[in-house]
Amino acid sequence: MVRWEPGARDRLRAAALELYASRGFDETTAADIAASVGLSERTFFRHFADKREVIFNGQDEFESAFVDRIAAAPEGSPMNVIANAVVGASDFFDTRQRDYSILRQSIIEANPSLRERELLKMTALAERMAAALRARGVAEPQASLAAQSGVTVFGVSFRLWLSPGEQRSLAEIERATLADLRSVTLEAAPAV
Amino acid sequence: MVRWEPGARDRLRAAALELYASRGFDETTAADIAASVGLSERTFFRHFADKREVIFNGQDEFESAFVDRIAAAPEGSPMNVIANAVVGASDFFDTRQRDYSILRQSIIEANPSLRERELLKMTALAERMAAALRARGVAEPQASLAAQSGVTVFGVSFRLWLSPGEQRSLAEIERATLADLRSVTLEAAPAV
Repeated sequence: MVRWEPGARDRLRAAALELYASRGFDETTAADIAASVGLSERTFFRHFADKREVIFNGQDEFESAFVDRIAAAPEGSPMNVIANAVVGASDFFDTRQRDYSILRQSIIEANPSLRERELLKMTALAERMAAALRARGVAEPQASLAAQSGVTVFGVSFRLWLSPGEQRSLAEIERATLADLRSVTLEAAPAV
Repeated sequence: MVRWEPGARDRLRAAALELYASRGFDETTAADIAASVGLSERTFFRHFADKREVIFNGQDEFESAFVDRIAAAPEGSPMNVIANAVVGASDFFDTRQRDYSILRQSIIEANPSLRERELLKMTALAERMAAALRARGVAEPQASLAAQSGVTVFGVSFRLWLSPGEQRSLAEIERATLADLRSVTLEAAPAV
């Protein structure tokens, strides 16, 4: 009875995103998704552990795109290592993925529990990046400050990348945001 | 039947933290907490909406300690306004509160759902701080970069403040961390 459906995973994902966007994430069941592309609920669960996994799978690959670059980086200041990792990881989001990312983001923004999950994903990324810096001998608090600043740059840049009319690649936006971060933090006069 | 118990709220809070720490948050019921100080479960729920609220109440005052200072700040660069707000808000955590904060933190670290809530609290703070900067005419992405950097400085400093043997006040640590953040971000050479 267990047949392999060629392309089933991609069809299920596309159908899921469309239904999440049009009907709402909470209002869509796995059975709805499967039925909309002529597959069974059972087939859905062969490909995805649950409804959320359609949106959040690939988390390990996403984190590795950043963390592996930190581990493999040549000698450099902590923020230089982070900056190169963040800009390098933008390969993960090529321009063809922009429409998918816009749709995915709109689904996440519309649902508080998905939004929480996305925020926690960013925190997990910052923690793994800080650990990767410490493994290179970077002390605290420099490791956490550089890693969290890297996630700030990624998050701000990613949102800009998805904004209407934006023409630049994610890497270009990240380079500009890194320069903005330097200017912003430089302008902190001694605090009270 | 509804009597006002003098000091009940403080006694319930102290008992709750002790039980959360010794027995675990999930393993402690509101009835356990109330019984341990000779009060009824009903009294517990007159003071706290649920078990989590013992740990997370005061969120509005916490955020206001930062945001009100941003709104009231004199002219200054975005990061200067943020730095002064973060250091100023350290009043919220005076040294007498350190033991309470250490206990609270250990309870949160031991429980994934409490940890998530705490992380989301920090994101909410960053979003409110960015909005307060925009209300002063600060453009994006500068508002988000300054606000998120402020939360990074607060988070890193707060963790240091609670570490064993730390003698400095939270404000002193925050000033040092702000200087560290400036050094770290300055050292980002142009990215690939």
